[in-house]
Amino acid sequence: MTTRIDGARLLGDLYALRKIGEYKTGVHRPTYSPEDVQSRHWLAARMTEAGLEPEIDGIGNVIGRARGDGPRLLLGSHVETQPQAGWLDGALGVIYGLEVARTLGGGIDVAAWADEEGHFGSFIGSRSFCGLLSETEIDQCHNRDGTALRDALAAAGFAGRPRAVVDPARYRGYLEAHIEQGAELEDTGKRIGIVTAIVGSHRFRIVFEGVQNHAGTTRMAIRKDAGVALVKLASAIYARFPEVAGSRTVWTTGRITLEPGAPSIVPGRAEMLFQFRDTDPGLLVSLEQELETLVAEANRGPCKVMIAERGRSTPQVMDAGFQDALEHAAERHAPELYVRMPSGAGHDAQILAERMRSAMLFVPSIGGVSHHYAEDTKDEDIVLGCHVFADAAAEILTG
Amino acid sequence: MTTRIDGARLLGDLYALRKIGEYKTGVHRPTYSPEDVQSRHWLAARMTEAGLEPEIDGIGNVIGRARGDGPRLLLGSHVETQPQAGWLDGALGVIYGLEVARTLGGGIDVAAWADEEGHFGSFIGSRSFCGLLSETEIDQCHNRDGTALRDALAAAGFAGRPRAVVDPARYRGYLEAHIEQGAELEDTGKRIGIVTAIVGSHRFRIVFEGVQNHAGTTRMAIRKDAGVALVKLASAIYARFPEVAGSRTVWTTGRITLEPGAPSIVPGRAEMLFQFRDTDPGLLVSLEQELETLVAEANRGPCKVMIAERGRSTPQVMDAGFQDALEHAAERHAPELYVRMPSGAGHDAQILAERMRSAMLFVPSIGGVSHHYAEDTKDEDIVLGCHVFADAAAEILTG
Repeated sequence: MTTRIDGARLLGDLYALRKIGEYKTGVHRPTYSPEDVQSRHWLAARMTEAGLEPEIDGIGNVIGRARGDGPRLLLGSHVETQPQAGWLDGALGVIYGLEVARTLGGGIDVAAWADEEGHFGSFIGSRSFCGLLSETEIDQCHNRDGTALRDALAAAGFAGRPRAVVDPARYRGYLEAHIEQGAELEDTGKRIGIVTAIVGSHRFRIVFEGVQNHAGTTRMAIRKDAGVALVKLASAIYARFPEVAGSRTVWTTGRITLEPGAPSIVPGRAEMLFQFRDTDPGLLVSLEQELETLVAEANRGPCKVMIAERGRSTPQVMDAGFQDALEHAAERHAPELYVRMPSGAGHDAQILAERMRSAMLFVPSIGGVSHHYAEDTKDEDIVLGCHVFADAAAEILTG
Repeated sequence: MTTRIDGARLLGDLYALRKIGEYKTGVHRPTYSPEDVQSRHWLAARMTEAGLEPEIDGIGNVIGRARGDGPRLLLGSHVETQPQAGWLDGALGVIYGLEVARTLGGGIDVAAWADEEGHFGSFIGSRSFCGLLSETEIDQCHNRDGTALRDALAAAGFAGRPRAVVDPARYRGYLEAHIEQGAELEDTGKRIGIVTAIVGSHRFRIVFEGVQNHAGTTRMAIRKDAGVALVKLASAIYARFPEVAGSRTVWTTGRITLEPGAPSIVPGRAEMLFQFRDTDPGLLVSLEQELETLVAEANRGPCKVMIAERGRSTPQVMDAGFQDALEHAAERHAPELYVRMPSGAGHDAQILAERMRSAMLFVPSIGGVSHHYAEDTKDEDIVLGCHVFADAAAEILTG
């Protein structure tokens, strides 16, 4: 089958949404900011126009439900952004959903999950919808500025509303479109990515305790330099991980802190934030064992080394039948210009996959740029992706 | 000869000075703070009582000059402290000077140099006295809070006063007593350190430029991770420096920063503050060459590595005759309980040594603690040190 999405209408909505919180060529729309709240009300109005019944629930999820009976497919992504970030990260998948709902004229629910970008917590919108977010956890969430999630919800006008919870029996499944956020499609000349799996990530805080001392009067032999212990462990990780990792594994030290951080003081305490990601659960276990071995070795040095988990997500394999539906559509609209690939970034689809069959489609990111206002995708790639997405949705709904 | 300093009077003055800016068991008296200014006026009053003619000059140096003619010896140290730091760091040497002036009854000038602790610059008080601080440099100095040195001097009431400049012909030389700030005396059971030389230090900022990217979607092979480049260079330094260094060389990475410092972002920029110290100028040159070699090797990696000098000081050998005078005195008061040793920390004596014969005496630091309010020295060690200091001063003056 071939559906006929309206490319100009699709782009028009994306351009309109871009104006809300516009920042340079991108968007600044942190979760529950006035701009974010405005964008949710804007979206609800577009859903009404599209014949959907919109609801903004008690966590800020915007859900537009199709009227009538029959099989249903859920399409969605998110509308909030990272600070001073791109215009398509999240917005693309939500407006794709809206356009497909308008095109197919029934059977499509559309969702914008709250806070996929993690300003207040980890996937709190989609986890709330999937029954994976407790009231207790909501009580504890706050953002970097120290604003409590409860207070932010109250300021946004969402406090006291019920939180929508999925009825899995209602849906054939969930589809999400997103920008790639990497350069693999561009580098290989492809225009459509069919996601095979979303990586799982293991995230750690590693703390080193030594003894703070004067950098001039403390001889090397008696130092317990927490910074040296950190550098040695980080170096050992970089040396060992390639031998354990798979071809797609990534590992990152995003932050290093030495305390007190003065040029003439031997650091008494040090900290690093470390994470690794892969789609293979067995590989994640092997990497964690390797990390624990290296930490144990580090503990034989003069400093005490402690590792604490900051969080982890499970790799999620995308539904094989949905991948096939996406491939059928891609073959029609972009023969030989699509590829199956894992997602190195996390997405709401990994949460929805806990409750229903789920899959994802990627469109190219120019230069692989992401989480920056310069993030962009060519208009023709945006339109092509929506054609593929709509066809796949139609096949799943009618199949 | 044996002089008779008054231990109770010495300790009484140290206890009184400790009250100005008292913080827990230590002192908080940053340069030109109200407490620091109060301590300078307090000291000037004590100098007057001791028969000296005090002056607080245009940089905040407190200089008490002996009346009359004849040979003169200059004794001094500093009265300001690091934030929330110890009660003896600097104060000990100043009050030793005062006590020796009172004991010998002539020939002793006493100085408290401004800002040895470097809140606004590097040794600005002693450098001003030695003619090594220009008005242009004063214009440029400011502290961590961004307060300009000129403004701080005005607020302290010292602006517009002349800056005292040394007349080298007036002095036989300069002696400074100080706490060790390390644990070598304590660990070896000694009570007096006779400083052979003050280390020179070379201080650097090393900056790494890579490409900031998403930690999930950017494959390892194409990353330009500035943090990885930093860890590799730091690790190479730790591996190579022991082969080039002397037995007393120390090297320290006091601060590491990754930017933007988020757990899921590949750092695009990184920075480390690195320094090394030794008393041997040739060794300092070799170490710097080794560092430059390692930076050149690091530049063959995916990131750009730039090294900038933050500052350097020249090693200063202490006067041999003055060391002998200190040893004669130590032999009388503390036979077999003294040792000759280098100073790993910088001191005003390294500046005064540019203009006159100079030497230093150390007393033990309990547990080697320094730049912390818990810093302390036993009362009997304080008194013993002053006996030795006074005898050495007397020998130099009359010799």
